[in-house]
Amino acid sequence: MKKLINDPDAVVREALEGIEAAHGERVRVVYDPMLIVRADAPVQGKVGIISGGGSGHEPMHGGFVGPGMLDAACPGEVFTSPTPDQMLEATKAVDGGAGVLHIVKNYTGDVLNFEMAADLAKGEDIEVEAVVTNDDVAVQDSLYTAGRRGVGITVLAEKICGAAADEGKSLAEVAELCRTVNGQGRSMGMALTPCITPGSGEPSFELADDEMEIGIGIHGEPGRYREQFSSAHDIVERMATAIVEDLPYESGDKVLAFVNGMGGTPLIELYIVYRELAKFLEGHGIAIERRLIGNYITSLEMAGCSITLLKLDDELTRLWDAPCDTPALRIG
Amino acid sequence: MKKLINDPDAVVREALEGIEAAHGERVRVVYDPMLIVRADAPVQGKVGIISGGGSGHEPMHGGFVGPGMLDAACPGEVFTSPTPDQMLEATKAVDGGAGVLHIVKNYTGDVLNFEMAADLAKGEDIEVEAVVTNDDVAVQDSLYTAGRRGVGITVLAEKICGAAADEGKSLAEVAELCRTVNGQGRSMGMALTPCITPGSGEPSFELADDEMEIGIGIHGEPGRYREQFSSAHDIVERMATAIVEDLPYESGDKVLAFVNGMGGTPLIELYIVYRELAKFLEGHGIAIERRLIGNYITSLEMAGCSITLLKLDDELTRLWDAPCDTPALRIG
Repeated sequence: MKKLINDPDAVVREALEGIEAAHGERVRVVYDPMLIVRADAPVQGKVGIISGGGSGHEPMHGGFVGPGMLDAACPGEVFTSPTPDQMLEATKAVDGGAGVLHIVKNYTGDVLNFEMAADLAKGEDIEVEAVVTNDDVAVQDSLYTAGRRGVGITVLAEKICGAAADEGKSLAEVAELCRTVNGQGRSMGMALTPCITPGSGEPSFELADDEMEIGIGIHGEPGRYREQFSSAHDIVERMATAIVEDLPYESGDKVLAFVNGMGGTPLIELYIVYRELAKFLEGHGIAIERRLIGNYITSLEMAGCSITLLKLDDELTRLWDAPCDTPALRIG
Repeated sequence: MKKLINDPDAVVREALEGIEAAHGERVRVVYDPMLIVRADAPVQGKVGIISGGGSGHEPMHGGFVGPGMLDAACPGEVFTSPTPDQMLEATKAVDGGAGVLHIVKNYTGDVLNFEMAADLAKGEDIEVEAVVTNDDVAVQDSLYTAGRRGVGITVLAEKICGAAADEGKSLAEVAELCRTVNGQGRSMGMALTPCITPGSGEPSFELADDEMEIGIGIHGEPGRYREQFSSAHDIVERMATAIVEDLPYESGDKVLAFVNGMGGTPLIELYIVYRELAKFLEGHGIAIERRLIGNYITSLEMAGCSITLLKLDDELTRLWDAPCDTPALRIG
């Protein structure tokens, strides 16, 4: 295992120290329990928004902490759920009196721990709502999930809900918006290579030199198909077909198209994927109104990509366009 | 070779089509010869700034085309210099009457072709200045270079010169500023893995499972040392020592610290590299006033990183902070 790390057991902590060194003017990093919090949190009167999950998916979620997006993130160890005490401390740190939204990717450990944290927060008189994202159309259940996995839509939900909270919307309204975004979003991912967690030092799965896996999860969980590598065109067509048929997205729909790199895929390839996606959607009469292309929800150094579509209306488009200023995403 | 592409010979063209589909409102993509140009170019009365080089280093340079940075970029085929006719067309497309600066990374093909393009542009009564960047301290000459290679400082020079051009500075002033940035900047890179060019289908070099190469170039050109992999701490110490001793950077200096990923290294590792660099510089009394962390000048899917330092003064800091709005870098 060759990685730019020092101690496999200290990866998350040392990366947090790097984040603090780099972005200490805009975020406050806490080490026990591990948190990344907006420097100006809590914002009085604003709904607080937190998320969290295992590390190894950077920039998600810590890179999205800042004005217009998340108020705090709880990083677990690599591919490991954060603990309820992290989530409770984050909730307390961002509560400005208007309650706190928990945006939770659907993985069993995350869901259970966020539920426990919400109960504890309510015991401290903090109003909490939780929304579980489950946009991955690849598989119904998976290694770490009952029901569909929560993936790319989480990034978009964090942005859009952050904008709504900035506008002074209530907790109930922001939570309802989050459910709407999740409900109108669908994703699918694929891998050309596995990744290696620092703790294990071993590839998360095996893929032959000519194989790919379509429908994979962000921890290398098995997907729908393992088969011979084909072309960007075929890969996009299969993933986009599964996504479009699932909601379904229909001719005349306007969407945000999100082409995400898994961490080890060069940007030049992501633009080829975007080219294929744009052609596919045009062929189906679906208009791309907004787009996001890059590494936003990754799986360490895995090579591959995911596609997320979000059906837009004027309100979602307006909230997407609202300013946000985080280390990993700036809009407006 | 598994890549998210269709045809190895069409990679650059198809990626350009993706860029056009994604960013067509802000850039104009030309295919013959291949160019990415600001949609509103030429800006009358402003010095135009262009750069270019082989593809495979995305987002450099095409991702930096936009207000406050480049007016146009000339992408060559992967790891292949663009041609003089591309550079001439780019020069003509961005000349708003105040002349055009060519920012050229020091690779023999790039330098010769930009020289030829400058001569041709002068024949069409366009004033041109060229500045060759050569910030890589690793090796004196290399496979593709007489003298030092031009690497990470190029990104910073494009940003800072773009700001100066926006302020109405003259061609001579912007060119002098570019020479200052290059003169006060030093870089070094390293790789954990090779990359595979789509055309060859073969790794650019071989590295054993426990080896790394320090001082490598962005095309996998040989570096200073090939040796056993150690730790992020040791790697940063060696690279930062070579950089700091070269200028030299001294106690009391203020710098912009740029930790760049080579394409296949996850962000969590880049933050550990940044942690090490921040500690190293603090130990030398050098203050990080600004920073940039991410994949900006890459080598396809190579795993590894580079470090660039730029010695700042108030003027350079002010120009760095000025707004820029490009697909890959937004400031202000």
